Amino acid sequence: MPSLSVLPPKCLQKPLLVPHRHMFGPGPSNVPSRILEAGANPVIGHMHPEIFEIMNDIKSGVQYMFQTQNNMTLAVSGTGHTAMECAIFNTVESGDSVLTAVNGIWGERAAEMAERIGARVNTIVAPPGGFFTNAEIEQALSKYRPVLFFLAHGESSTGVLHPLDGIGQLCQRYNCLFLVDAVASIGGAPLHMDQQGIDILYTGSQKVLNAPPEKNVYIGPIGIRKSKPVSFFLDLNWLANYWGCDGKPSRVYHHTGPVTAFFSLRESLAVLVEEGLENSWERHQKVAEYFHTGLESMGLKLFVKEKKARLPTVTTIVAPHGYDWKEITSYIMKTHNIEISGGLGPSVGLVLRVGLMGCNSSKANVDMVLGALKDALKHCHKSKV
Amino acid sequence: MPSLSVLPPKCLQKPLLVPHRHMFGPGPSNVPSRILEAGANPVIGHMHPEIFEIMNDIKSGVQYMFQTQNNMTLAVSGTGHTAMECAIFNTVESGDSVLTAVNGIWGERAAEMAERIGARVNTIVAPPGGFFTNAEIEQALSKYRPVLFFLAHGESSTGVLHPLDGIGQLCQRYNCLFLVDAVASIGGAPLHMDQQGIDILYTGSQKVLNAPPEKNVYIGPIGIRKSKPVSFFLDLNWLANYWGCDGKPSRVYHHTGPVTAFFSLRESLAVLVEEGLENSWERHQKVAEYFHTGLESMGLKLFVKEKKARLPTVTTIVAPHGYDWKEITSYIMKTHNIEISGGLGPSVGLVLRVGLMGCNSSKANVDMVLGALKDALKHCHKSKV
Repeated sequence: MPSLSVLPPKCLQKPLLVPHRHMFGPGPSNVPSRILEAGANPVIGHMHPEIFEIMNDIKSGVQYMFQTQNNMTLAVSGTGHTAMECAIFNTVESGDSVLTAVNGIWGERAAEMAERIGARVNTIVAPPGGFFTNAEIEQALSKYRPVLFFLAHGESSTGVLHPLDGIGQLCQRYNCLFLVDAVASIGGAPLHMDQQGIDILYTGSQKVLNAPPEKNVYIGPIGIRKSKPVSFFLDLNWLANYWGCDGKPSRVYHHTGPVTAFFSLRESLAVLVEEGLENSWERHQKVAEYFHTGLESMGLKLFVKEKKARLPTVTTIVAPHGYDWKEITSYIMKTHNIEISGGLGPSVGLVLRVGLMGCNSSKANVDMVLGALKDALKHCHKSKV
Repeated sequence: MPSLSVLPPKCLQKPLLVPHRHMFGPGPSNVPSRILEAGANPVIGHMHPEIFEIMNDIKSGVQYMFQTQNNMTLAVSGTGHTAMECAIFNTVESGDSVLTAVNGIWGERAAEMAERIGARVNTIVAPPGGFFTNAEIEQALSKYRPVLFFLAHGESSTGVLHPLDGIGQLCQRYNCLFLVDAVASIGGAPLHMDQQGIDILYTGSQKVLNAPPEKNVYIGPIGIRKSKPVSFFLDLNWLANYWGCDGKPSRVYHHTGPVTAFFSLRESLAVLVEEGLENSWERHQKVAEYFHTGLESMGLKLFVKEKKARLPTVTTIVAPHGYDWKEITSYIMKTHNIEISGGLGPSVGLVLRVGLMGCNSSKANVDMVLGALKDALKHCHKSKV
């Protein structure tokens, strides 16, 4: 047996130190200790009856959060991007026509994912901060005849809440699946999956749900594709069985589910159920309006002009003229221990982004952020850029 | 605004209850409170300097655990299957020849994954409990000229520890990448990635590492494929940048890393560093031998005939003649609060599987399992099958 060629690293001989921070960026948001503690419960088996019970509770909570009766409800063992790819891999085949609405980074990424598996992808594009009318969407559906239409409900890169009414019905008319990204919006803005005719919906755990970023929920149809999806791990036929969605009497081992992440996800859904979905929507809307008024009274401008299209969870502020936005976010982190962020993708350099989601959505936190912004504008260098 | 069509589920109004259990199946294993507590630290940003530091610590710990200087070391944000697909998606293109060694479920699954992305897959097959000689492997390499050869080091479905010496050199001679699955073996049995000529290696967090099942580590080369992999999320060019492996000065947002899973993974690597890799290998080997002797002195038979090919982490016992194996595992769970399991894939019905991994690998736990097995053989029905 040879001796070790790589010695034990010294860095791991120091204890783990994690700072406490106000997580007011576009996500992840702060996780209440109640949810962190749930995730620190002892590990049980990924096929034990108790975990199936917890997974059933998660299903019920997600159906409530999404307002759907769709039995094909499950949590993908991965990130928001995993859920996105799960949705696309299970509905699109090589050569299929796909349409994505691009008004920020998420439409771009959905297009890239569909392209990678050989779809013919077309896009409709709106400038950052903009959105699409139903007439524009219908025109594109009629022109490209896609099998799948992707739309971000909450465009976290630009702060846009996209109107949803009527689009599901359009998709139905053109025999097209309607896929909606609700990562940044779910629980913070009204959404009625069934009534709005949404076929496939996914979200993330680390936004309004205030769970650690590692578990993402997904609903969608199965049995659409003729061929097997490119990913075994994300094959919805397997996942549906593991989540008890396929009506079969027994569950077959597919992968080792992240049981502790199920614990924290269940707890975060319990918190949402306690408050009530409509109360949560209303709180996020009120806090956002209070925040927006405060920003405008400081002389700052909101990036999204139309009020009804402002995402209540993530606010985009026009990057203050004459300042280096990076200096502002760094100053606020260093001086106030608060994370806010700059733009992402097409909004880089154009905006500051502030996320107040789930337990972070409160007037007290708005006051804290407004105070930090005022302080930063006073102390950061003007005309540096 | 329509009113809610799905009401708050009653099941989420009850508190989460998670039983304590001895997790002596093939994984997940018990997670020490030290690691659970690390994972309950507050969430910080996935792009904060502190998380990059923690990710660097993880890289160092994994390089030590794998015995490699390979800088392309990272933890995939997902399950062991995600790491498998990451390895295959980033090294195989449609039409490529791939060879997998099938002596249990993992070779079968690797074959299926490669087939789904259009590879021409050939297999060499050994019966459950068996393994391959280097001559057999060379013959297949020479015949199929694959770009990738897959082998499971620890075949958890059959309890086989596959010999590794010389295979990397064979692969090199045939210009083939050597991909090794070390999910069940790493930290519990000697492995020297660089010296053994392994090109790509992945493992899981929930076995010897005793971290929750949600984070999986992976090492491999980039820049091999000509076309983009089918998965954006698992594109190694993006992942390498997020993990600071590509030498670029700044990291670009790819996905929201599961920061709390990074905390617990770092802690589990710190535990391994504290004990020392060679001590951990030795402890698992000694405990396994003690266990195997105890089983044989009870009259039970080990499924893997050849001593040196017995996996020290997961022991397979020939299913006791005349008993229903399911009655045995259920009895032990109900009466002793211990998880042991039956077979998986090709070993279903043939074996009982007992995993003693990481902190679970101790003579005291062996005595506990032996006691439970004796009790079960006494109380379960004979000749039921």
